[in-house]
Amino acid sequence: MAKILILGAGVMGTAITMPMTHNGHTVHLVGTHLDGDIIEAIHGDHYHPRLRSRVAETVIPYTFDRLGEAMEGVDLVVLGVNSLGTDWAAEMLGPRLPPHTPVVLLTKGLAGDGQTLYILPDVLRKSMPSHYQNQAQVAAIGGPSIANELAALRHTCVVLAGSDKSLLEAIADLLRTRYYHIWTSTDLIGVEVSVALKNLYALAVGLVQGWLEKEGEANGGAAMYNAASAIFAQSLWEIGYLVEYMGGERRSVYTLPGAGDFYTTCQSGRNSRMGRLLGLGMSYRQAKAQYMPEDTVEGAELALSIGPTVETLIDREELDGAAVPLLRTVVDLVCHESRPKILWDAFFAGI
Amino acid sequence: MAKILILGAGVMGTAITMPMTHNGHTVHLVGTHLDGDIIEAIHGDHYHPRLRSRVAETVIPYTFDRLGEAMEGVDLVVLGVNSLGTDWAAEMLGPRLPPHTPVVLLTKGLAGDGQTLYILPDVLRKSMPSHYQNQAQVAAIGGPSIANELAALRHTCVVLAGSDKSLLEAIADLLRTRYYHIWTSTDLIGVEVSVALKNLYALAVGLVQGWLEKEGEANGGAAMYNAASAIFAQSLWEIGYLVEYMGGERRSVYTLPGAGDFYTTCQSGRNSRMGRLLGLGMSYRQAKAQYMPEDTVEGAELALSIGPTVETLIDREELDGAAVPLLRTVVDLVCHESRPKILWDAFFAGI
Repeated sequence: MAKILILGAGVMGTAITMPMTHNGHTVHLVGTHLDGDIIEAIHGDHYHPRLRSRVAETVIPYTFDRLGEAMEGVDLVVLGVNSLGTDWAAEMLGPRLPPHTPVVLLTKGLAGDGQTLYILPDVLRKSMPSHYQNQAQVAAIGGPSIANELAALRHTCVVLAGSDKSLLEAIADLLRTRYYHIWTSTDLIGVEVSVALKNLYALAVGLVQGWLEKEGEANGGAAMYNAASAIFAQSLWEIGYLVEYMGGERRSVYTLPGAGDFYTTCQSGRNSRMGRLLGLGMSYRQAKAQYMPEDTVEGAELALSIGPTVETLIDREELDGAAVPLLRTVVDLVCHESRPKILWDAFFAGI
Repeated sequence: MAKILILGAGVMGTAITMPMTHNGHTVHLVGTHLDGDIIEAIHGDHYHPRLRSRVAETVIPYTFDRLGEAMEGVDLVVLGVNSLGTDWAAEMLGPRLPPHTPVVLLTKGLAGDGQTLYILPDVLRKSMPSHYQNQAQVAAIGGPSIANELAALRHTCVVLAGSDKSLLEAIADLLRTRYYHIWTSTDLIGVEVSVALKNLYALAVGLVQGWLEKEGEANGGAAMYNAASAIFAQSLWEIGYLVEYMGGERRSVYTLPGAGDFYTTCQSGRNSRMGRLLGLGMSYRQAKAQYMPEDTVEGAELALSIGPTVETLIDREELDGAAVPLLRTVVDLVCHESRPKILWDAFFAGI
């Protein structure tokens, strides 16, 4: 049995304790400074208030000041912070992480520094102390995983991606259960780019719901599935382009990390809700302030985080702007408060 | 301006008159023997009762006995019958179709003769008189197109596939409008296999809705999006395998004909409804007889039509059974009245 540390006691960081404890592992669940109430609740009655689930008695909750203690002798570290917390997590883990201890990211996102786009495992690695950077075994889990479904032991299929296939298989074996199905992949870039971008593109699919509410059904029932589906397909096409641009493989786009995760994201969640508000005609700033002030809208955060870099790369013709009309639309919406303009006839460039 | 004949006055055959008449073409809409009441209604007040839309005054309705007359001087024939009517349509068109007149299929399906699988354009061609078979220009339209949305002039993006790129572009130019967006593709096989199979796989995605209704939400709101999304992704993976087996290209699977059309099909429609009933625990025969006796469930019809051929091909090891576990599940459900069994860990073979 292994000893596993999870940093971040949000819904996903906590849901993944289920397969771990089912397999008999010892789990140290370390809350961030934002998770104090959650850790307290788990200490009390082992109930996670946001996940609305009980966690196993064998999950040991830690507040964040006890990270060093919780880290002793761990075989695996899982990172469950949100995308804004990656740098912070690297800073926290850096001095305490034993070399060779693999880190698995649940966090989704991409980063841009104005010149280049990065996947989060690379951001994490670069923020680590130099002695760790070359030894770091950073892997990531991607795929359609709504946390409360996993917590309810409902079938969930994911990909564990990294560079060392045998290490990936060893980690997957720690986590696999009859309901948590894991494939391993060495296409870390393809998986990470796919799972990050799905949030951004879900804003575009979500627009259609807003338009439909504004215009109403037509002809006794006609909705706008055709439009939503075309945007869905174009999103996958653009994700495919961007994955290849970053050095990844299209097969990740067309399986669980891309098509699968994107499907879930379009059915529910905060990104779709924000897309709907934008489709109703609100500006991003207005929609955020008025309706979702407390929510982290990962797709919009991603647009804010990579938008300027994307624009620079297009200006420099390193990225082909004609290949990513929807990406440009979403960046315009979120970063420049523009109105949504879908350039239908610019879709599927290069097909 | 062109003269276009549409055979089949169902919802799709009629909806596509909108872009045609907008572009000023003359349209002869010929009902099948099942469309008598529709043709009468259009003669009366130009209203299509099932589409719940008015058609343009310039659409000339014909009953089927006047097919020869309606066919005179046409530049293009569009086939809007359902998948069960392809042989019949070939028989009707065969003696009357001027050679070199292109035929565009809206009909979706595949055929199996126990030994081999065929796309419908090939079925149509083979059923034509021999003098036409070699000259026949058979093309097909695929992509997410709910008929009443197109009839309401809502944005709809499709692919027109065939073998002659310049002919395809000429036909596309006849049909393109500001709301009807058309890409052309020479991957006729990839498009046809994708758009046919999406109906069959939508039964599998639909199962999840039935399971959810049986088991209920968990943990204050947990649905089963993870499961539905994994099945969605596996479906695309299997469609990709089958497209390549038939000689087509994966890019069709991952754009409008595959991912796009499948997305729409999973959101609504008869295939999803049948999947839900099967997920609730009914046998196919019971569900059909009790709840959908009047409906053509295209995905189930397809399973019945190709199931025996698929089983033979797997037995002969021409098709790799391990690559298509969901296809086998759906064939078992529909052809053999079995209970749904999803082999999660058999997903994504060969990835």
